[in-house]
Amino acid sequence: MSQKRAILSVSDKTGIIEFAKGLIELGYEIISTGGTKKVLEQEGISVISISEITGFPEILDGRVKTLHPNVFAGLLAIRANEDHLKQLQEQHVDLIDLVVVNLYPFKETISKPGVTFEEAIENIDIGGPSMLRAAAKNYQDVAVIVDPTDYQAVIEELKQEQMLSLAAKKKLAAKVFRHTAAYDALIAQYWNDQLEEVFPEKLTLTYEKVQELRYGENPHQKASFYREAISKQGLAYAKQLHGKELSYNNIQDTNAAWEIIKEFKQPAVVAVKHMNPCGVGVGKNLSEAFTRAYEADPVSIFGGIVATNQMVDEDTASRLKEIFLEVIIAPGFTEQALELLTKKKNIRLLELVEGEGASSKKVVSVLGGLLVQDQDKKQINAEELKVVTKRKPTTEELEQLQFAWKVVKHVKSNAIVLANGQQTVGIGAGQMNRVGAAKIAIEQAGELAKGAVMASDAFFPMPDTVEEAAKAGITAIIQPGGSIRDEDSIIEADKHGITMVFTSIRHFKH
Amino acid sequence: MSQKRAILSVSDKTGIIEFAKGLIELGYEIISTGGTKKVLEQEGISVISISEITGFPEILDGRVKTLHPNVFAGLLAIRANEDHLKQLQEQHVDLIDLVVVNLYPFKETISKPGVTFEEAIENIDIGGPSMLRAAAKNYQDVAVIVDPTDYQAVIEELKQEQMLSLAAKKKLAAKVFRHTAAYDALIAQYWNDQLEEVFPEKLTLTYEKVQELRYGENPHQKASFYREAISKQGLAYAKQLHGKELSYNNIQDTNAAWEIIKEFKQPAVVAVKHMNPCGVGVGKNLSEAFTRAYEADPVSIFGGIVATNQMVDEDTASRLKEIFLEVIIAPGFTEQALELLTKKKNIRLLELVEGEGASSKKVVSVLGGLLVQDQDKKQINAEELKVVTKRKPTTEELEQLQFAWKVVKHVKSNAIVLANGQQTVGIGAGQMNRVGAAKIAIEQAGELAKGAVMASDAFFPMPDTVEEAAKAGITAIIQPGGSIRDEDSIIEADKHGITMVFTSIRHFKH
Repeated sequence: MSQKRAILSVSDKTGIIEFAKGLIELGYEIISTGGTKKVLEQEGISVISISEITGFPEILDGRVKTLHPNVFAGLLAIRANEDHLKQLQEQHVDLIDLVVVNLYPFKETISKPGVTFEEAIENIDIGGPSMLRAAAKNYQDVAVIVDPTDYQAVIEELKQEQMLSLAAKKKLAAKVFRHTAAYDALIAQYWNDQLEEVFPEKLTLTYEKVQELRYGENPHQKASFYREAISKQGLAYAKQLHGKELSYNNIQDTNAAWEIIKEFKQPAVVAVKHMNPCGVGVGKNLSEAFTRAYEADPVSIFGGIVATNQMVDEDTASRLKEIFLEVIIAPGFTEQALELLTKKKNIRLLELVEGEGASSKKVVSVLGGLLVQDQDKKQINAEELKVVTKRKPTTEELEQLQFAWKVVKHVKSNAIVLANGQQTVGIGAGQMNRVGAAKIAIEQAGELAKGAVMASDAFFPMPDTVEEAAKAGITAIIQPGGSIRDEDSIIEADKHGITMVFTSIRHFKH
Repeated sequence: MSQKRAILSVSDKTGIIEFAKGLIELGYEIISTGGTKKVLEQEGISVISISEITGFPEILDGRVKTLHPNVFAGLLAIRANEDHLKQLQEQHVDLIDLVVVNLYPFKETISKPGVTFEEAIENIDIGGPSMLRAAAKNYQDVAVIVDPTDYQAVIEELKQEQMLSLAAKKKLAAKVFRHTAAYDALIAQYWNDQLEEVFPEKLTLTYEKVQELRYGENPHQKASFYREAISKQGLAYAKQLHGKELSYNNIQDTNAAWEIIKEFKQPAVVAVKHMNPCGVGVGKNLSEAFTRAYEADPVSIFGGIVATNQMVDEDTASRLKEIFLEVIIAPGFTEQALELLTKKKNIRLLELVEGEGASSKKVVSVLGGLLVQDQDKKQINAEELKVVTKRKPTTEELEQLQFAWKVVKHVKSNAIVLANGQQTVGIGAGQMNRVGAAKIAIEQAGELAKGAVMASDAFFPMPDTVEEAAKAGITAIIQPGGSIRDEDSIIEADKHGITMVFTSIRHFKH
């Protein structure tokens, strides 16, 4: 058996010394370069320089060191192919049996604040991916390691079996392609961002696993939760302080709740069920906001998700503790609040401090494809509202309308929200026709509809919704406008002294 | 000025001869290898062999030909760096100014039926991505082309300006990383599939653009439509026969409609609005099925999407023509049907012949992350249903229950569907509590609720839904079961002579 040889060239030095020592014990020769070589030699490990193998010096500040046929033929020769072996002999190239490479830290580089384009580009590894990919292509003859957590298992298998099983080598090779794919996807994404290429001809998205989930929307669907590889923001980076693992539906609902809570600056509480808000309240403090969110629909909140935009205090916590909730997500919890809430085993507590950096795009599958769109971050100012009725809204009505508008944006279409400015009193969600959504909201509001305001996520195709609003005692309506039959709705509103404003902005959500 | 040199090595030979001639006219030397060299020489273009540059023969059946410092130093040297240039001189390496590479056709290879793993692996390009990435990293000095559609613009700019602008080179380089990212993402996906790695530690998904959309869910959101790079199946590959461009919401709704229609083997028609079915009908022929789907809710279908599971015939087309629809999707249209329907300018007609191959996974964004899950393809057999009431369903009721169950699976949660076995008569969708969904469905059904059956996508937490069903005259219920209070619902059903079956399968959909 010929001399076994391994190339080690890593930017992440974790565990590399121990691994190299293991290889030496197994009789391997170590080939290395640069920082890795230095670290190993400091530990007294004898290392052959890559340039000894290539007969070519390391040049261009390290840009060219491994890209040489003496390396690549040694990696790519099929051992079962006699011609290949003969060609290697003719060219005086020796086989290389194992490659350990992890790449220049491109992700870490671009995550640094204020990094320049040139710095980022200099951290694009060229030789590393080439070696990894060559070794992985020739997986049946070459073991290739890209992840330090694999060192121990490889050494152990080598000690016990002299060589790695084909299955083990195949698994390592698959990991290489996942790694190089993710690496180049990040580079592509970085360039796209720099060049403002919003929808490139090829879109490659890369994610890192957060956790495998027990199941998906339903127990017969397998599922997993991933996070964007670059951003450190958003729900995928929330810190779980308490409780069992989040479920798929928890994550969806918590995300919906968090998207709504971000609309509010005053102390606010949002309760979500099946991705729709069932109660939203604002108040002078969080406890008051919670009371309003709860009373908005004390039935649906059961088993729901609650989000707050302020640190959960003891008072609010003592109230939250009284009801069965799946998740509470907040920018934080006071010590006393945590003490109270952690007594409940089944509740999950998440801390999420919002920042910028998460992708501004949303994606969703369709059969065989993907829809990509901007998040709906559109806001309105009071000045942009167009009063279309004879009666103008009072200052109070205007505030109430703006509150209702913030909520209706996050309710599944067709959506109608009734509110009194501090809380929702009726929410009609996900209906196939608009008046249906209105009827649901009005029925839920009951007596509270009287004097409330109405928000609609899209225009009224017919005056019937205004008619229903009038019957229920609603005094003001906010909606996008833009139907060819707007006039009918305006006439209907005027008939009942209802004030109506148009936003010219639609907020469909599905 | 030194001699300009270009490396050309392409598997897709489109336009390469003309491009090479253009470069020759501009005074470039052409370096090439293998098939590209042969094609160019046949056209009388003089070509320098890569092995002349490297001084190293092409070995290992082409696995090693370009991976040599004489190539890579020529690509990676920074022209503005005197040390780099000096090092090149010392090593007798000449600069390379332009690279044209497209990679071994990995995607095409794995798309071939019956391709072996070995064949696929042999089509993983090693040298190509290395050259592309090196050139792209050194974009300020090297032009790099991965896509034949860029040839003409490059030649024209070179003719006019002698050199490419930095902006042009940057754009070309960005395209390279998009290309290599997509290439390795496909390789990774292929290996994952082979090794049954369902949720790998790094997930990189790659798509190709179908079209930019006018906007997303709302006009203030930019959006684009992509398809899976490998599959040729699913909505993203449907053929549009007529009408203007699909909108974002059209695509979502059409996808929802197609997912439902796939449940049925008998002639069936599904109408969808805001991603929920508003009417589903089956019949002995398509026309009858349409009548039932239409009559299920003649209001909501307005402006909706219709899917059929059979070729649209003249009779059905003449009926469809009478109502305003956004999209009709079908396995096909007869000539007469097409003639009738294409008279309507605003309707979009899509032909989709279903096959296998589209990804079995669904993805959806959350803030900073991604949820990935299996599609919900679970089916039930009549034998698996558990009758929990005293009264067993009649054969007719059993059929009706199965029909309703197929539909409720595709209605947004909480969902209740009332049906008579041939058509839906009431659909309650997207509600925050279950009895609310039931009330909506019952109200919509009106008199038709009498003698209808009810399906619920999840269990009844309380007996109130059964109570409502009884009041409305519903005779049979299908639901997953599994609530700690199932017994209360069973007692309630028995009280009214309602038969109820449990599926033990939940179908949440959000």
